[in-house]
Amino acid sequence: MEHEVMARLREAMKEGGYDALVALSQDNVTYTAGFLVPSHALNRFRRTVTVIAGASFAAQIVVSVEENLARQRSRFSDIRAYDQFSQDPADVLADALVEAGVGSGRIAIELDYMPAKDYIRLRERLPKVQFVPCSDLYFTARMVKTDEEIALLTEVGELTDRVAGEVLREVRPGMTEKAVGQIITDKMMAGGCDALKYQVGSGVRSGITNCTPTDKVIELGDVIRVEILGDMNQYRSNVTRTAVVGEPTDEQRKIWDVMIGARERCKTMLKPGTAVADLYRTYVTYLRERGIEPTLRFLGHGIGQTIHEEPYITDSRTVVLEPNITFTMEPLYMIPGRMGFHVEDMYRVTATGFAPITGMISPNDALIQIG
Amino acid sequence: MEHEVMARLREAMKEGGYDALVALSQDNVTYTAGFLVPSHALNRFRRTVTVIAGASFAAQIVVSVEENLARQRSRFSDIRAYDQFSQDPADVLADALVEAGVGSGRIAIELDYMPAKDYIRLRERLPKVQFVPCSDLYFTARMVKTDEEIALLTEVGELTDRVAGEVLREVRPGMTEKAVGQIITDKMMAGGCDALKYQVGSGVRSGITNCTPTDKVIELGDVIRVEILGDMNQYRSNVTRTAVVGEPTDEQRKIWDVMIGARERCKTMLKPGTAVADLYRTYVTYLRERGIEPTLRFLGHGIGQTIHEEPYITDSRTVVLEPNITFTMEPLYMIPGRMGFHVEDMYRVTATGFAPITGMISPNDALIQIG
Repeated sequence: MEHEVMARLREAMKEGGYDALVALSQDNVTYTAGFLVPSHALNRFRRTVTVIAGASFAAQIVVSVEENLARQRSRFSDIRAYDQFSQDPADVLADALVEAGVGSGRIAIELDYMPAKDYIRLRERLPKVQFVPCSDLYFTARMVKTDEEIALLTEVGELTDRVAGEVLREVRPGMTEKAVGQIITDKMMAGGCDALKYQVGSGVRSGITNCTPTDKVIELGDVIRVEILGDMNQYRSNVTRTAVVGEPTDEQRKIWDVMIGARERCKTMLKPGTAVADLYRTYVTYLRERGIEPTLRFLGHGIGQTIHEEPYITDSRTVVLEPNITFTMEPLYMIPGRMGFHVEDMYRVTATGFAPITGMISPNDALIQIG
Repeated sequence: MEHEVMARLREAMKEGGYDALVALSQDNVTYTAGFLVPSHALNRFRRTVTVIAGASFAAQIVVSVEENLARQRSRFSDIRAYDQFSQDPADVLADALVEAGVGSGRIAIELDYMPAKDYIRLRERLPKVQFVPCSDLYFTARMVKTDEEIALLTEVGELTDRVAGEVLREVRPGMTEKAVGQIITDKMMAGGCDALKYQVGSGVRSGITNCTPTDKVIELGDVIRVEILGDMNQYRSNVTRTAVVGEPTDEQRKIWDVMIGARERCKTMLKPGTAVADLYRTYVTYLRERGIEPTLRFLGHGIGQTIHEEPYITDSRTVVLEPNITFTMEPLYMIPGRMGFHVEDMYRVTATGFAPITGMISPNDALIQIG
C-alpha cells in the first residue's frame, strides 16, 4: 500500500489528466518522499527529484552521496543515484520517464522551480512530451493537512508560542536586538527545534518588514517586534508579537486596537465555506474604515512544510476554506521611519469553525508592555 | 565609483562579450548586491534579481515587502519593487533589460537557477535575445576572494575550529547525538554565528555521509563524526572531526593514518599553479595504493558565500590554483553499516603556498579519543 501522501498525489495526477507528476523543489520533494535530502537544503546544484507515473511507477533521483540515506528514509523504494560530476540529473530524469512509458505523455512538473537548464535539456531529450506546471496540484494537495502533519504543526507551534511569550518577558532596555535573538535561539533549540529564523526590530527598525536583528540597543519608548519562524521535523511555525518598552502612547494603543479588532472580526469568519478573498477584504475594509492603510497585500498565508504556502489570504486567491487547512493571520502596519505593529498566529479550520494552533500560551491581544 | 565586486562583474561581463549579466540565485544575488534579501532564504516564489548592463546600468528587483530594506542595504541604488500577487517578476526583468537597451542583446543569465517558467516568459517577451549561462562567470569571479571576504571567512572559520574541538571534549558515552548537536548550536550561536547546520553520526551512523543527529545514544567503541557548517555575515565555514569513544582499534588507526597521510601529501601541492585535478588524483592514488577506495568523487570544494562552490577539487575541473582561492580538503572514507572517517579543514592559497584557515585550534591529525 502506498503512503497516504503518495496515493493522494497519484489520484490528483490522474484527475488532472497527467501521465506523470515530477517534483524537484525541496518542499514538494520532502512532502512526497517523507524526508528531507540534506543536499537539497545545502547545495542548489544537487538535484533531488521524485517521479510518480501511471498506476504504479514511483522513483526518486538523488545525488550519489545521498543514496544510503535515501534508501533508509525515503517512502520510495526505487532510488536512483547520479554522480554529480559526470552525469546530468536531467538525463536521469528523462530516462526514468521513458522507462515509465510516458516519454511522449503529458507531464506535470515544477516549471516554477526546475532550472531553465534542465528544462532545455528535457525538451531536447523528450521533444514529444507536453510539460505543464504542477504547482497548483501540489498547492492543493498540501493545503489540507493529514493528522500526522497537524500533530507536527501543533508541536512546533506550541513551542514557538511559549518562547515568544517568555522572550518578551526577559527583554530589558539596554539589551541589543541581537541579544534578544540569542534568547530566542537558546529557548527554541532547547525546546527541540531543528532550525529557526527570527526577526527582531526595535524603535524605527520595528517599521521594517523583515528586520534582521542588529547591535541596536533597545531603549525606553521603543516599539519592539519579534517574529519567530521555527522548524521541527520539517514543519514550520510563524508567530509574531509586538511590545512597547514603557507606557504605550495613545496613538500606539489606538493602532493596536484596530489591528486586533480586525483580527477578531476575521476570526468570526473562519469556517468551511469562507472564501479567503472575503477574509482579506473584510480585514482591509475594517482597517480603512478606521483610517489605516494595510502595509501588506495579504492577511496571512498557509503554513506546513513551508512557512509561506497556499492559501495566501489575499484578494487574488479563489481558495475556499475546508477542514484541516492550516494558515496564519498576521495583521501588520508599518509606519516607515517611525514604528511598526504586527501580530501573527497560526490557525486550523475544523469541521464547524476553527482551532487556534498558537496564541493560547502567549496572547498578544493587548500590546505587551516591557519594564 | 562602483563597489569592487560590481566593477569586477561588469568587467567580466564585457570580457565575455555579454551585453548584460543577470543573477537570480541567493548566493549570486547576495554576492552582487552585498546583502541577503531575507525573502530569498525564506520563500522560493519571491524572486530577487540583479541586472548589470552596458557601461553603467545597474538595477535590483525585489518583492515589494523587501523594498525598504533593499534601499537601506543594497549596493544598487536603482531598486525596483514588484507586487507578488499582481506582477510577474519576469516582466519586471524584461522591462529593465529593454530600458537598459539590451532587449535584443546577448544576455548572460543564471539558466541553472532561473525557473523554467521565467525562462519561458522572458523568451516570449524578448524573442531576439540570446540567453547564455553565466554560471562560469560567477564561479570564476567568486572563487578569488577580496580581502573583506577573507576576513569574514577567517572569523567564521576560527569560531568553528574552536567549537569543533570543544564539543568533542564534552562528549561522553550515554549522550545522544541530538545532545551533541545542542552543544554545537549553543557554542556556535554564543560565538556570533547567524545560522548553522551540523551532522553528528555515531557508531554505524558515522558511516552515513550526511547524518542528521538522532536520539541514538553514544556508546563505548563508537566512531563519532561531527561536521559543522557555520554561517556568519553570509560567509560559511565547514569543519569536520572524527573521534573514537575509548581506545581506537588497529584497523581504525590504520585507516586514519592513510587519510591524514593523503591530506599531508596534498598540502605540499597547495600553491599557485597547481591544477585541482592533480590534487584530486594525488589523493586518490595515495588512498588506492594503501587499499582504500575513496567514498567521494572529490577531495574538497571552494567555500565562501556558499558551502560548496568552485573550485571543486575533482577530476573533471580545469581550475588552476591562484592566490586568495579558498577551499576545503576533506578526506572521507565510509564503510556502510560499520563506521566512517572524515576530516575537513579550510585553506587559502597565498602568493607562494597556502595558509590554513582552520585546523590550528582543534587539529585532528590523530583520531580524537573520548573518555
